[in-house]
Amino acid sequence: MLRGLGGAGLGALESEVQLIELAGKYGFQAVDINALSLVERFGEKKAKELLSENGVVIGSIGLPVDWRTTEEAFLEGLKQLGEYAAAARLLGCTRCCTYILPSTDYPSAHFMALATRRLRSCAQLLGAYGIRLGLEFVGPHHLRTRWANPFIWTMEETLDWIGTIGESNVGLLLDAYHWYTNGLNIADIVALKAEQIVHVHINDAPDVPVEDALDNGRLYPGEGVIDLTGFLKGLRAIGYVGPVSQEILAQEPRQGTPEELVLHSKSCFDKVFGAAGL
Amino acid sequence: MLRGLGGAGLGALESEVQLIELAGKYGFQAVDINALSLVERFGEKKAKELLSENGVVIGSIGLPVDWRTTEEAFLEGLKQLGEYAAAARLLGCTRCCTYILPSTDYPSAHFMALATRRLRSCAQLLGAYGIRLGLEFVGPHHLRTRWANPFIWTMEETLDWIGTIGESNVGLLLDAYHWYTNGLNIADIVALKAEQIVHVHINDAPDVPVEDALDNGRLYPGEGVIDLTGFLKGLRAIGYVGPVSQEILAQEPRQGTPEELVLHSKSCFDKVFGAAGL
Amino acid sequence: MLRGLGGAGLGALESEVQLIELAGKYGFQAVDINALSLVERFGEKKAKELLSENGVVIGSIGLPVDWRTTEEAFLEGLKQLGEYAAAARLLGCTRCCTYILPSTDYPSAHFMALATRRLRSCAQLLGAYGIRLGLEFVGPHHLRTRWANPFIWTMEETLDWIGTIGESNVGLLLDAYHWYTNGLNIADIVALKAEQIVHVHINDAPDVPVEDALDNGRLYPGEGVIDLTGFLKGLRAIGYVGPVSQEILAQEPRQGTPEELVLHSKSCFDKVFGAAGL
Amino acid sequence: MLRGLGGAGLGALESEVQLIELAGKYGFQAVDINALSLVERFGEKKAKELLSENGVVIGSIGLPVDWRTTEEAFLEGLKQLGEYAAAARLLGCTRCCTYILPSTDYPSAHFMALATRRLRSCAQLLGAYGIRLGLEFVGPHHLRTRWANPFIWTMEETLDWIGTIGESNVGLLLDAYHWYTNGLNIADIVALKAEQIVHVHINDAPDVPVEDALDNGRLYPGEGVIDLTGFLKGLRAIGYVGPVSQEILAQEPRQGTPEELVLHSKSCFDKVFGAAGL
Repeated sequence: MLRGLGGAGLGALESEVQLIELAGKYGFQAVDINALSLVERFGEKKAKELLSENGVVIGSIGLPVDWRTTEEAFLEGLKQLGEYAAAARLLGCTRCCTYILPSTDYPSAHFMALATRRLRSCAQLLGAYGIRLGLEFVGPHHLRTRWANPFIWTMEETLDWIGTIGESNVGLLLDAYHWYTNGLNIADIVALKAEQIVHVHINDAPDVPVEDALDNGRLYPGEGVIDLTGFLKGLRAIGYVGPVSQEILAQEPRQGTPEELVLHSKSCFDKVFGAAGL
Repeated sequence: MLRGLGGAGLGALESEVQLIELAGKYGFQAVDINALSLVERFGEKKAKELLSENGVVIGSIGLPVDWRTTEEAFLEGLKQLGEYAAAARLLGCTRCCTYILPSTDYPSAHFMALATRRLRSCAQLLGAYGIRLGLEFVGPHHLRTRWANPFIWTMEETLDWIGTIGESNVGLLLDAYHWYTNGLNIADIVALKAEQIVHVHINDAPDVPVEDALDNGRLYPGEGVIDLTGFLKGLRAIGYVGPVSQEILAQEPRQGTPEELVLHSKSCFDKVFGAAGL
Repeated sequence: MLRGLGGAGLGALESEVQLIELAGKYGFQAVDINALSLVERFGEKKAKELLSENGVVIGSIGLPVDWRTTEEAFLEGLKQLGEYAAAARLLGCTRCCTYILPSTDYPSAHFMALATRRLRSCAQLLGAYGIRLGLEFVGPHHLRTRWANPFIWTMEETLDWIGTIGESNVGLLLDAYHWYTNGLNIADIVALKAEQIVHVHINDAPDVPVEDALDNGRLYPGEGVIDLTGFLKGLRAIGYVGPVSQEILAQEPRQGTPEELVLHSKSCFDKVFGAAGL
Repeated sequence: MLRGLGGAGLGALESEVQLIELAGKYGFQAVDINALSLVERFGEKKAKELLSENGVVIGSIGLPVDWRTTEEAFLEGLKQLGEYAAAARLLGCTRCCTYILPSTDYPSAHFMALATRRLRSCAQLLGAYGIRLGLEFVGPHHLRTRWANPFIWTMEETLDWIGTIGESNVGLLLDAYHWYTNGLNIADIVALKAEQIVHVHINDAPDVPVEDALDNGRLYPGEGVIDLTGFLKGLRAIGYVGPVSQEILAQEPRQGTPEELVLHSKSCFDKVFGAAGL
């Protein structure tokens, strides 16, 4: 598995370049950034050098398409997805991820039909570029009633949805927080095949009843109550070798310079990866 | 357009043979029956003769797959669909239809994902045999809350769903009763392309507030308040030339022998087809 | 049917604006141009005005993706297809076309596999924008052995291929020249459904043995030996109402200013459309 | 990896029951048989017991659909595929395989289009039952010109074709003989992901120039010149854990009773599996 960093939880990063450099400096092997902006800013050659000189790869890009609202917004995003995918491919990135909100103001069934079609379109285009689409189910209970109608939030529902989307390059983004807030355990991970997982997020939850764990109340790995040792061991058991990226969404972000926070993240990763024997 | 008959509304038919014979005798050109049972009972040659001698074709077969409950039930039905499709093809039938209940006891979004996958599987197999799958949206208001969670019931939602299923052989079954109970008008038909319609059902509604029209409270064409002249004119305007089959679901079925009822149906068709200039 | 013009056969056009203006001036109703360049040059509003003020629509854009050579070339084109499709949609264009060379230097079967995947990717993305993809089979005999290995060139093979591509928005571009050089007749058109045809090209062939008719030896409609009256009557019989665009590929292009040539085209269209009773 | 046996190379087996019993007796863990005939003959319960009592699973069923000739033959087979798939699922089998002849009497490109559609139909139906479809590329040189037109025979072409078929449940059947006759090496195996391989065949080739190795001139594993140690090590290196089934096609089959031949196969497997450290 590759230790990965995304921007969330690292304070006021100046740029994605800084993220790349700090990641490399503190032993991370992957970063979740926008490949296209990197290529546009530096050109292909320099962008590749920037990554290789810092010893990191791009773990995943975010899906730059709004598939959750209007058809117009969807098409406006989709028209540029080719460029995003091509840039990711150029830099060796093979993952693109998006999250699923557990409720919606649209009628649930009809929205599921629309969302299926839209995500299939995204997956098809990404697939042409050898890029997989990871769908992140979102577990925190408060979000299940945040909008008018329930959507889906369990891993099982998400796997079913992936089957419905029906493109071979779609899989899970497995986030420790959502795994935890869904009440899942290690057996649920071990029941997966490694190839069903596109990407992994790691983070921790405060010691509150699981129903009260807020989506933006996350801690750094090892600071909370999630069994991250079991989580990582489960992933290793099935042969997952991709990135495990930190994503700390917090209403009151941890204070510190980006470098201080990356250093903190490193100690957190050392702790939980070490405990898992990785 | 072809005048069509299904069994619903014709009393205690002895067999599908009787339906074929009565249809032929009273000027109907299509029947909605099970092609496989006909082939199994009579063999291909005699089954074809039975149809041709009575001057009728098979308008549509029903989808013999339970896609609304468990995966096991679905797979149990799907395994035989090939035989049904092959028999339909043998007898020149190119349509297979199923209806969509407007509510469900399953969670709406997840059920939509499962149902999409299941109907796609059916459509794919039917498509290999040159058979189209017609999806019938169901309008009566009482069914929208009949089960715990809302599903879909409008034509627009159904068209979106057809797009999501994503197979080119899937289209609408347009039923006059559901068109009426959805508050649709002629412009909504004219906005369709003929090739979006797989099959048509015709029947009528009693003079009650539209919200109170019950699914099993249907009348024969021309006996009620639905603008069937407009309905048929709309279909003609877009060039629909397929079957228009009577389907009279009624809690208290009309009394009479099958022949008396087919004769009655004939007079009803004469009236509404005549009024539409067909 | 809409009388349409493409640039081929109109001499040294200054711009697509000139094509639009001349088309409008001489009673043509459709032009085959690049929607994206029009939007980029004039903006959406002015581009729409330019079309509407001249009374023309965009019949079809060309597929801006090289699907016939390397994977790299394919991906380089595909990444921009979204922008092309979005621009076409903006201007109300619903067609995008490409032609199929009847032979190839790649091994036939493997190339068919690659080409199927590539065109499916194109069709999927175009489909999201409501745009159909028209595939033009190419009939001239000399091209069947122009490259090392035979590919496909008949209408029947192309229809089979469309079925294999498996996206509901793919259909034929029916070109009179290829219809003629394939030895097809009116019955072959009448056997089609209108919705199988995405776009139509019209042009004529010299009075030489059909095996000797060169791809770039085309005449204006009515100047040659193709039964264009039958061709157009066949299209009308099945209800085709889309554009019929002139495409005159010629090694030695007809001399004249674009306006003179459009005027000539108009007289040719008057003749053949008139003879067909259109 | 599971040691597997198919009927080819075991003499005049009385029945699949005998194959199951002999496989179990001599330490094989998988058999390639027809699940449906087993279920039809013994019923689900007894069929399962027969397998479990002998300690074997069904490695793969053969695809019971003729996708290589006429559309009628294809549809005749496809209509029963659901029953085959359901029976396989019942007995826990998740693989179904077919081979690709390297040449064809049909025009190559058109046949590729047809075959793609047909195998996709098969894959879609199998997929509903959780069964993967393995495509076996066939390497012997003499078959490349056995029929009029070249088709495909390399692993790379087959992988491309699998991508074109576009269903996530399709992968390779990797046969040692075809790997050898294609001139492939261990690196070619290591470049695969385990999940790309549906099934594996093992057998050996005589010490003749590779171009002269006949498809039906195969030896038992370890009797010939194929580097089966490297073959198996390569599979282990990528984490392949499925069945490796013996398939000995021979014009002059080895003499002996089935039991003698299974015993011989056992010693062959012991030798090559042992050499590979399995």
